[in-house]
Amino acid sequence: MSVTPIIDCDIHQRLKSPSDLFPYLPRHYVEDIKSFGLRMPGGGYLNGGDRGYRSDAWPTEGRMVGSDLDLLRQQLLDVYPIEYGILLGQELRPTSSLPDADYAGALATAYNDWMRDHWLDQDERLRGAIMVAHQDPIKAAAEVRRAAKHPSMVGVLFPNGARMPYGQRYYDPIYQACEDLGLPLVLHTGSEGVGINPAPSPVGYPAHYVELRQGRAMGYQTHLASMIFEGLFERYPSLKVVFVEGGYIWLPTYLWRLDSDWRALRSQTPWVKKAPSEYVFERCLFASQPMETSEGAKRLLQIFEWAQAERTLVFASDYPHWDFDSPELALPPLPEPMKSRVFSENAREVFRLERREVRAPAAAGPA
Amino acid sequence: MSVTPIIDCDIHQRLKSPSDLFPYLPRHYVEDIKSFGLRMPGGGYLNGGDRGYRSDAWPTEGRMVGSDLDLLRQQLLDVYPIEYGILLGQELRPTSSLPDADYAGALATAYNDWMRDHWLDQDERLRGAIMVAHQDPIKAAAEVRRAAKHPSMVGVLFPNGARMPYGQRYYDPIYQACEDLGLPLVLHTGSEGVGINPAPSPVGYPAHYVELRQGRAMGYQTHLASMIFEGLFERYPSLKVVFVEGGYIWLPTYLWRLDSDWRALRSQTPWVKKAPSEYVFERCLFASQPMETSEGAKRLLQIFEWAQAERTLVFASDYPHWDFDSPELALPPLPEPMKSRVFSENAREVFRLERREVRAPAAAGPA
Repeated sequence: MSVTPIIDCDIHQRLKSPSDLFPYLPRHYVEDIKSFGLRMPGGGYLNGGDRGYRSDAWPTEGRMVGSDLDLLRQQLLDVYPIEYGILLGQELRPTSSLPDADYAGALATAYNDWMRDHWLDQDERLRGAIMVAHQDPIKAAAEVRRAAKHPSMVGVLFPNGARMPYGQRYYDPIYQACEDLGLPLVLHTGSEGVGINPAPSPVGYPAHYVELRQGRAMGYQTHLASMIFEGLFERYPSLKVVFVEGGYIWLPTYLWRLDSDWRALRSQTPWVKKAPSEYVFERCLFASQPMETSEGAKRLLQIFEWAQAERTLVFASDYPHWDFDSPELALPPLPEPMKSRVFSENAREVFRLERREVRAPAAAGPA
Repeated sequence: MSVTPIIDCDIHQRLKSPSDLFPYLPRHYVEDIKSFGLRMPGGGYLNGGDRGYRSDAWPTEGRMVGSDLDLLRQQLLDVYPIEYGILLGQELRPTSSLPDADYAGALATAYNDWMRDHWLDQDERLRGAIMVAHQDPIKAAAEVRRAAKHPSMVGVLFPNGARMPYGQRYYDPIYQACEDLGLPLVLHTGSEGVGINPAPSPVGYPAHYVELRQGRAMGYQTHLASMIFEGLFERYPSLKVVFVEGGYIWLPTYLWRLDSDWRALRSQTPWVKKAPSEYVFERCLFASQPMETSEGAKRLLQIFEWAQAERTLVFASDYPHWDFDSPELALPPLPEPMKSRVFSENAREVFRLERREVRAPAAAGPA
């Protein structure tokens, strides 16, 4: 039986405890954490599911969800034909919204080394994205160059939440490192409206988690327009960007809007050499989860065609979160070559992964 | 020849000078304006076209664009088969982002009376939306009840930019007045990120006007989700909302996302009785301009079908702005009954307008 290999672009691994980081942190931060905890900024919103996760992903014996590599193997890596899984962290992702850039930078470094020792070096299927504290772009770029020496580091991780849109030159030292090392920028939702970031919407703070979730796409849309109209893709001609967990089906109509506005206003940004959609189709990828599967295959496939999914869509499960998308059910049946592009080829290209042999597991692959 | 009448839901009229307001303002504000101007908050961004307008809409003799009723007749009201045109103001629209609620309230009242005397009472085709200063919702509600005594006032005008999303109960006194008087809430883009409002995106201030424009839809999407998930449409069972100049083609995929998230998370907002899209199709309308006509008819018509345009879309020209949409060219040829619903029937219903006889003008109507 032919198996479609899967590269899962969004897996979340957690610390068993903040003390997991202590071997990698300067002593004074260890003492601070013992006294005050990690102090990750939060917004006070609910999440979904069982405390944010799949109920069955909580290990027995009171351990922290997402902290058990064996369970990740049993529930994801060994169940589906996973060629690679990209680890995008969890509780430290608001690091770039901390007020203290030095502490944030130390946390990012500790996280990268902890992920290397406890995850990347423990399973040949796992890859990771380098966390940085972009409060200090020069130090963050140095951390990218340091951490990227490990061959399993395949991207640089930014949260969606930020003080400034990601096309602005403030971030250029980090992008120069990405360009030099061939690492894509990987955006993951989160940190909108927390810590030193502005409100999570242009009109303040919505009240409920279901509303807050809608700000994910808004952050991504702002970053995307900023990258295009600040000329980021002209400044860094090989840089690619992967947008994770901020939606996909908004993409076509957003590009029609950007293209229309660019045509009407392009004298104001003459360094933008071509239509916004062209940059996006060449340089940007979007992870599938959470997909709006309740809308039915016909509508989704029309959107996929408009969005050029065979170039722009990568699969993500979001394991072990409550809104996990199973490889079998996440997407409507896709025609080839779209299917293999979406489930593995697009991700293999952007993350520069060597092809691995994948054996057929017990569970089926994509429909 | 049969003529499709047009109700144009977005026309901008300007003051000839701030002194036009002086007869309607308390003396001390007159003196303040003489010394310091109107002090409307602004963001420092460019606009498009000829200083923001159609070149040919600037009157000769150095007069202010948009301030000449004769020119409005010559360029819009008498050229197309305009049954009604809804005036949505211009330079005072950031009033709700002023720091001083008392001054803002006085400006709103003066604007409403100036519009009544200088526009609404001068042409039987003109209707207006009542400006309020929503920094003080109780006073704003009183202003709605006062100004609504004039029969040509057909809605209540809010800017997109705000400190809080528009579903929140802070605004309820105003909504109660709308409900009592049968007036729809009319949102018009603008004021995002200025004055007392938060940043115009969840990730700070973009650099260019073309980027800022993308925040319009984000504000509207946040307000829309807030209205649904705060139960606004349950609290006010006849309230309708018209979203002007913030885009339309994003609507279907946004509703698919809202519906998906509501299904997954509806235990957190049990007062929301049905799928978000159902509230929107029953209570919300969206103005057409600026339409992404460069994408071609087939794609737009697919979007219109998904968005139930025959219930949710109203025509707007945005005269005299630079990105004016002509009734002949703004939309692809629409099948009946969608065409008459979009060009007049939907607007006639939501604004409760009596049918007027429209004679065929020189220029053609909608394609």
